[in-house]
Amino acid sequence: MISLLTDFGPGSEHVGALHAVLAVGCPGAERIDLAHDLPPGDVRGGALTLARLAPLLPGAVHLAVVDPGVGTPRRAAAVELADGGALVGPDNGLLGPAAATLGATAAVALTPPSQGAATFHGRDLFAPAAARIACGARVADLGEAFDPAELVTPDLPAAEVGDGHMAALAVGIDRFGNVQLLAGRADLAEAGFTAGDRIWAAVTNRRHPATVGRVFADVAPKGMLVHIDSHGMVALAVNGGSAATRIGVATGALVTLGRWFPEGR
Amino acid sequence: MISLLTDFGPGSEHVGALHAVLAVGCPGAERIDLAHDLPPGDVRGGALTLARLAPLLPGAVHLAVVDPGVGTPRRAAAVELADGGALVGPDNGLLGPAAATLGATAAVALTPPSQGAATFHGRDLFAPAAARIACGARVADLGEAFDPAELVTPDLPAAEVGDGHMAALAVGIDRFGNVQLLAGRADLAEAGFTAGDRIWAAVTNRRHPATVGRVFADVAPKGMLVHIDSHGMVALAVNGGSAATRIGVATGALVTLGRWFPEGR
Amino acid sequence: MISLLTDFGPGSEHVGALHAVLAVGCPGAERIDLAHDLPPGDVRGGALTLARLAPLLPGAVHLAVVDPGVGTPRRAAAVELADGGALVGPDNGLLGPAAATLGATAAVALTPPSQGAATFHGRDLFAPAAARIACGARVADLGEAFDPAELVTPDLPAAEVGDGHMAALAVGIDRFGNVQLLAGRADLAEAGFTAGDRIWAAVTNRRHPATVGRVFADVAPKGMLVHIDSHGMVALAVNGGSAATRIGVATGALVTLGRWFPEGR
Repeated sequence: MISLLTDFGPGSEHVGALHAVLAVGCPGAERIDLAHDLPPGDVRGGALTLARLAPLLPGAVHLAVVDPGVGTPRRAAAVELADGGALVGPDNGLLGPAAATLGATAAVALTPPSQGAATFHGRDLFAPAAARIACGARVADLGEAFDPAELVTPDLPAAEVGDGHMAALAVGIDRFGNVQLLAGRADLAEAGFTAGDRIWAAVTNRRHPATVGRVFADVAPKGMLVHIDSHGMVALAVNGGSAATRIGVATGALVTLGRWFPEGR
Repeated sequence: MISLLTDFGPGSEHVGALHAVLAVGCPGAERIDLAHDLPPGDVRGGALTLARLAPLLPGAVHLAVVDPGVGTPRRAAAVELADGGALVGPDNGLLGPAAATLGATAAVALTPPSQGAATFHGRDLFAPAAARIACGARVADLGEAFDPAELVTPDLPAAEVGDGHMAALAVGIDRFGNVQLLAGRADLAEAGFTAGDRIWAAVTNRRHPATVGRVFADVAPKGMLVHIDSHGMVALAVNGGSAATRIGVATGALVTLGRWFPEGR
Repeated sequence: MISLLTDFGPGSEHVGALHAVLAVGCPGAERIDLAHDLPPGDVRGGALTLARLAPLLPGAVHLAVVDPGVGTPRRAAAVELADGGALVGPDNGLLGPAAATLGATAAVALTPPSQGAATFHGRDLFAPAAARIACGARVADLGEAFDPAELVTPDLPAAEVGDGHMAALAVGIDRFGNVQLLAGRADLAEAGFTAGDRIWAAVTNRRHPATVGRVFADVAPKGMLVHIDSHGMVALAVNGGSAATRIGVATGALVTLGRWFPEGR
């Protein structure tokens, strides 16, 4: 089983090329598209997505390509996982969280194709390596070993939390306009926000009212909800609308949440 | 065979999660993506799409998730079909038309995962149920039975038709800007519109000229065509352009067609 | 093995319908999505994409549908390839380059479904033919033979090249804003552009500076690179940005490159 996660865009010929190389390189392997709509170059978002989806497919080879530094000397890696699977992709932070979640037992640097020709590493380096592993090759035989502890980790700053206050990065925005923050249940608790609390969310100095809750039914239509999403992260959602549009946020921006005082604004 | 139809967005990690759960839950089952680009929350459009695509795959398990009410008490359902297949998804209107088209022989309410934790019903409830059915479980064993006649049906208002006049809902807009109306061949006939007639189409009070025809060749480049589309529905199309943009329509809006009199405007 | 290439849009029900027809028409055949995000009606771009991806899948049946002329008398074709595979789609230029690249050994005109009913040729004509070929039917048995040399070829104008100057069509723009030109390595050499040269690129009379190079590392962040891409074509790219947005280009427009003189503007 081979999974694919890229920022190539759904339905793009770049994704098609990966599938073609995998289909020919390891006939019979099942291929599963995990995500292809990541924001271009969003290594951090890709890393977090891979870390939460890869555990759903124990023993699979995960081909992940979000690679704004293609052509630079960043390392190309294959990582052997404790669950019997593997990660293959650029060692730019994309693989670190999944390796930490699943446990890495070995890692090698893949040798890029000849630097004399322009190359598409997804098609020419990573997909062939993933196909070989899926068809039985050992990770250790594909390149020069390095300590998996050296895998690059993306910058994942902890949320800043105080009583009645939290600031955290927006790390994922989906099609529905749900905004996922780099913060978890403990952060929400530490801020003292509990179900039913009226709070505000802001990216600029404009504060937008929200309610701490669990499901859309906890807020009125078009109301904004701050909740723990299905991945265990703090997230903003608008009932029947887009939280991303409401507060004007893009991936990578800092979102501030604060307690709303009746007299405040 | 398991089909998937959602409003999660093509290439999104939400679709990836469904595939992963299905691949592990019923190894060897073939998975077919029917549609993932439905407008967010468009239960009616999803229901009509499912009803016309599901018959192409006799005996398949159809996993359908357009679920703006997730987290509310709306019923989660699995439906046994006369063709040996099944429908799995929220009972919010999404499944009704397909059940009617294919014939429902039994239905059960699925028990949602613990309400104590935030859940993603597609991943945590519907996909596991679909995988179990695809791998041989009986629908009747998955929950508490209810009469399939009680399945919710979406609001599908009949077209209003008079001589030289028709008003119908826009229920589908594709990438080419083709606008599908909730009206069929009989409605067009009842309005007295026949091939070659010059008519107008309007959403607001601005009327746009169109010609009743069968193929783009029946109108000049950039001309608008009113025809019966490949699903048997009345549809608007612009030769080399977008009918949706031309008349300024969004899914769910009412479109009026009328006979164009030479002296009229 | 059956590949699919269309302009239907990723995740659209039109793509879903093709998959459903293929899955039922030739059970067990592997299906590979090559591309579905081609600009609507972009026959030339589709033809070039098909010609470069099809060779990755020797022996496969390639179902290609970019068909702005559906409903007109354009020929519907199935083409037998020298590699044992086949092409199926409208004979409007879409198949010509792939047939030339892979070698065509026979061709037939497919008989369209009854003209009395509106039809979706992808679903009703091309996909069933592709399924039959994938399951063993001979191309010659599917329609009336014609000389494959008669396959329509899209308009592929050669780049105009002079010393220090080149003008070529933009034939592909991907999600990253990379702009692929209908020109190759020889054209770049003929223009006298070599690595490190400072040149300009323009669509209108506004000239944008660029550097001839090989990888993004050859230009500063937000700098524009002119290089040979992984398909061997001249392409424009912006390091950490979009070349398409930078120069304001759409598919089909003419892009001019010129040598930048210090005193020039």
